[in-house]
Amino acid sequence: MSGAATAIERVLDRVLGSNPREGEIARPVRLIEAMRHATLGGGKRLRAFLAVETARLFEANGESALRVGAALECLHAYSLVHDDLPAMDDDDLRRGRPTVHRAFDEATAILAGDALQTLAFDLLADPATDADPQVRSDLVLGLARASGLGGMAGGQMLDLQAEKDTPDEAAIRRLQAMKTGALIRFSCEAGAILGRATAEDRDRIRRFGEVIGLAFQLADDILDETATAEALGKATGKDSSRGKGTLVGLYGVTPVRAMLDGLVAEAEELLAPFGARAVTLAEAARFVAIREA
Amino acid sequence: MSGAATAIERVLDRVLGSNPREGEIARPVRLIEAMRHATLGGGKRLRAFLAVETARLFEANGESALRVGAALECLHAYSLVHDDLPAMDDDDLRRGRPTVHRAFDEATAILAGDALQTLAFDLLADPATDADPQVRSDLVLGLARASGLGGMAGGQMLDLQAEKDTPDEAAIRRLQAMKTGALIRFSCEAGAILGRATAEDRDRIRRFGEVIGLAFQLADDILDETATAEALGKATGKDSSRGKGTLVGLYGVTPVRAMLDGLVAEAEELLAPFGARAVTLAEAARFVAIREA
Repeated sequence: MSGAATAIERVLDRVLGSNPREGEIARPVRLIEAMRHATLGGGKRLRAFLAVETARLFEANGESALRVGAALECLHAYSLVHDDLPAMDDDDLRRGRPTVHRAFDEATAILAGDALQTLAFDLLADPATDADPQVRSDLVLGLARASGLGGMAGGQMLDLQAEKDTPDEAAIRRLQAMKTGALIRFSCEAGAILGRATAEDRDRIRRFGEVIGLAFQLADDILDETATAEALGKATGKDSSRGKGTLVGLYGVTPVRAMLDGLVAEAEELLAPFGARAVTLAEAARFVAIREA
Repeated sequence: MSGAATAIERVLDRVLGSNPREGEIARPVRLIEAMRHATLGGGKRLRAFLAVETARLFEANGESALRVGAALECLHAYSLVHDDLPAMDDDDLRRGRPTVHRAFDEATAILAGDALQTLAFDLLADPATDADPQVRSDLVLGLARASGLGGMAGGQMLDLQAEKDTPDEAAIRRLQAMKTGALIRFSCEAGAILGRATAEDRDRIRRFGEVIGLAFQLADDILDETATAEALGKATGKDSSRGKGTLVGLYGVTPVRAMLDGLVAEAEELLAPFGARAVTLAEAARFVAIREA
């Protein structure tokens, strides 16, 4: 995924530069530094990669896809910054570096997350992303649905409450579909929107995104159980030690690895109609399932 | 402003209802309760009122204007919820009721603010707000610019830093233009966008919004100096006691009242070409300047 990751980094670096944009009164330097800390210099860029690769499948403009990818990474980064806060998961480390509230302070971290969310919508609604307002509007609405109370934020709320309950499989799946699944699914769908995919192809890509989201989460749960903090660059064993429900916690690692194999097979099947053009996406599905960090 | 306020309350009550929307997996009840606490049951609804009244000036659809007004109130409410957090202004009281982190808890307040910001963009990008994607996209971009790092969030960051410095008039004006001015200005502009105003009228309304924003802030600074906490439903004397810069602090109440008179005169002049249709907006300008709570 390194090609897309480098290009995304370049877009983010430009958007979070020190030059005021048209109509801006001033750029608050410390806030921008915190936003740069949260978004630049690392991360797998999975969401951006998925958007860029699905966009490529439908021969969308490459620069547009990078801007959409950058928006997805801003949205994702905002959620990490807020999840890491003392009142939430209280984490000191993220991608091997201090979290934003540790490197700066809590107020700055709250504001940096807030402004990163706004920036994601700003990027999507900007005519520079796509000349067609219908496309921009669809992208904004899709992102809002994936990240709002019916998606990521709602999932994080259920997650906080789950620390007190013991959720069953259905509850775990619901929570994960909202907290991480919705945004990953939309990352794929965004590429299809940008590429003016047919309704049938868009549905197929949505399902592909759902499968990738599930695989990503299950792989994450396995890693949380088996990997070292050093390899991940963040604390491990958190979920099980806090009694949070995961399918790994419920069934153990082996059955979950079997589920992962099934998901990879489904992802490949969904991509089959796209033939050789989809080879990178298919590889990504395998990579997501077997990754070790 | 009570007519618009009641109608806005109705829209928010419906949007933050307990029925899942199409495609939603679940509604996190506690999160929705916190969002309702933050948005329902009070507030001046100044931003919604300005959007609804400018939309009326250009004969825009009334239901559309209410949805835009609701989006503006969601955005405003998110900023209040986050500003009230312990890491920020650490306030216990808002509109005479406990702040969200006091009524619920800090994590829920962070998430409720996050989800309210998302909901604002969701409402603007939704085809139910306006059938024309160009209008929806313009609304989203305008809101993002008014509330992001070049607007409200950036202004709040400058405000946090200003607690350490002693800002001069230019710095105070810059900060206020970003922190409160940008969103109030956009509230007016949003009505002009919805009403397909000419470029000339849109510029005029933008300037009107700027003037109202300034007047609102100066009146707020005077109230902060002179009113009781009981009348305002929130803590007073905060700004001056913390050494934050306001023009009232710099020049005293009397010269600022004179500035307010000048702003009201300019607002009336800007509305003059609209004749009798603008009588409610002109009244609002006067009300904003002389309000006592």
